[in-house]
Amino acid sequence: MKILAIDTSNHPMSVAVVENDQLLATETLNMVRNHSIYLMPVIDKLVKLVKWQPEDIDRIVVAQGPGSYTGIRIAVSTAKVLADTMNKELVGVSSLEVLARNIVPTTKEVIVPFFDARRGNIFAGAYQWQAGKLVNRIADQHLAMKDLLAQLANLDQPILLVGHLTDRIAKVMGEMPANVQLAPRPFSIPSTYQLALAGKDIQPVTDIDSMVPHYLRITEAEANWQKLHPGEIRQNYVREV
Amino acid sequence: MKILAIDTSNHPMSVAVVENDQLLATETLNMVRNHSIYLMPVIDKLVKLVKWQPEDIDRIVVAQGPGSYTGIRIAVSTAKVLADTMNKELVGVSSLEVLARNIVPTTKEVIVPFFDARRGNIFAGAYQWQAGKLVNRIADQHLAMKDLLAQLANLDQPILLVGHLTDRIAKVMGEMPANVQLAPRPFSIPSTYQLALAGKDIQPVTDIDSMVPHYLRITEAEANWQKLHPGEIRQNYVREV
Repeated sequence: MKILAIDTSNHPMSVAVVENDQLLATETLNMVRNHSIYLMPVIDKLVKLVKWQPEDIDRIVVAQGPGSYTGIRIAVSTAKVLADTMNKELVGVSSLEVLARNIVPTTKEVIVPFFDARRGNIFAGAYQWQAGKLVNRIADQHLAMKDLLAQLANLDQPILLVGHLTDRIAKVMGEMPANVQLAPRPFSIPSTYQLALAGKDIQPVTDIDSMVPHYLRITEAEANWQKLHPGEIRQNYVREV
Repeated sequence: MKILAIDTSNHPMSVAVVENDQLLATETLNMVRNHSIYLMPVIDKLVKLVKWQPEDIDRIVVAQGPGSYTGIRIAVSTAKVLADTMNKELVGVSSLEVLARNIVPTTKEVIVPFFDARRGNIFAGAYQWQAGKLVNRIADQHLAMKDLLAQLANLDQPILLVGHLTDRIAKVMGEMPANVQLAPRPFSIPSTYQLALAGKDIQPVTDIDSMVPHYLRITEAEANWQKLHPGEIRQNYVREV
């Protein structure tokens, strides 16, 4: 199975081409903000490098969020357009799960991947390896870093935080609880090789039209709309718009 | 500090540009055998992408071996020529240590990175995280996979093998001892981001002229020479030639 894997959820932008469990090529850019400018040329270059024709690709795996609004929109839109126009299978994987997979499966600790979500908030989930399978223990969510650490301090077990602790999060988080350790920075770079493997066996594949990014918070547009329309409740704002 | 990190020790070829502990960009190709053709263009492209001038680079960090004869010669030669002509700092790091660094520092197990060295042999070393530092427990060496597993079975502690178990090694290795687990395949891809960080603080820097690859076995040329000159002993064959 030939897989194209894409992750632009956060600061790093990464693309991999993977065939039958083997990485063929991958590129990660971590110095650009314009993922929209770099993404298609990188995909194009890698696919040509491994001498695939577009029709060779079997499946597109995309990190579906949470993450930056614009970042996950870019990856999900690109993946949807490619899957739709080329008639490919499409699946999404949690961007937080991708980070958790940087931690080797013999690890006993609860793995808590996180991304800076600005304003002192983060996206985080809890995962744990059980008999070689990565199990989600606490669903991905949007919360204050302070609240996350308070929750983790209450758990009576060792926790491994995986993510880039930005200065603005470090400033507001207070002290790290004694049972929590932070993985070094290289583990906060998502591996699209791991993403491809995580999405390889997912069944059924996603309905392309109905795939939306996993924002896990209301969009800025939605927040503005709510301010202008107090008391009104809208379901599926993203899909309606 | 601006670092260019290069690893072509084995099947994967990887280059990273790293500044002040932050990954800027990295590319890994794992489908080519001609590292000599791809290496300089990838270095050139990444350096341009991050808008560095050649004079901006402070240090070159190279995975010095063990690994494929040709592979480590390509990386070490390229690194030496770049360091010499551009007057840069140069340091080498064990290619096996680079793999060990894919395993998060909270890991208690003894980490045994390995590469297929053909003919049923491997290169392997033993490393362990102690208070956040990766410590070498058994020096990198060239030995039969069978002998390595026999040694590991005798150790009364859990072992984490990190490397790509090729079919030809799997065929000759016999059974995996009960105390040994193999990390999934993505952990066998070296991270040149980790390589850059491993080499960042090494002092003193290497004397460029005298750096040689760490073959850890005699070269084929040397083996042929020995056959033709039985009984004669040559020290530093590589350096003499």
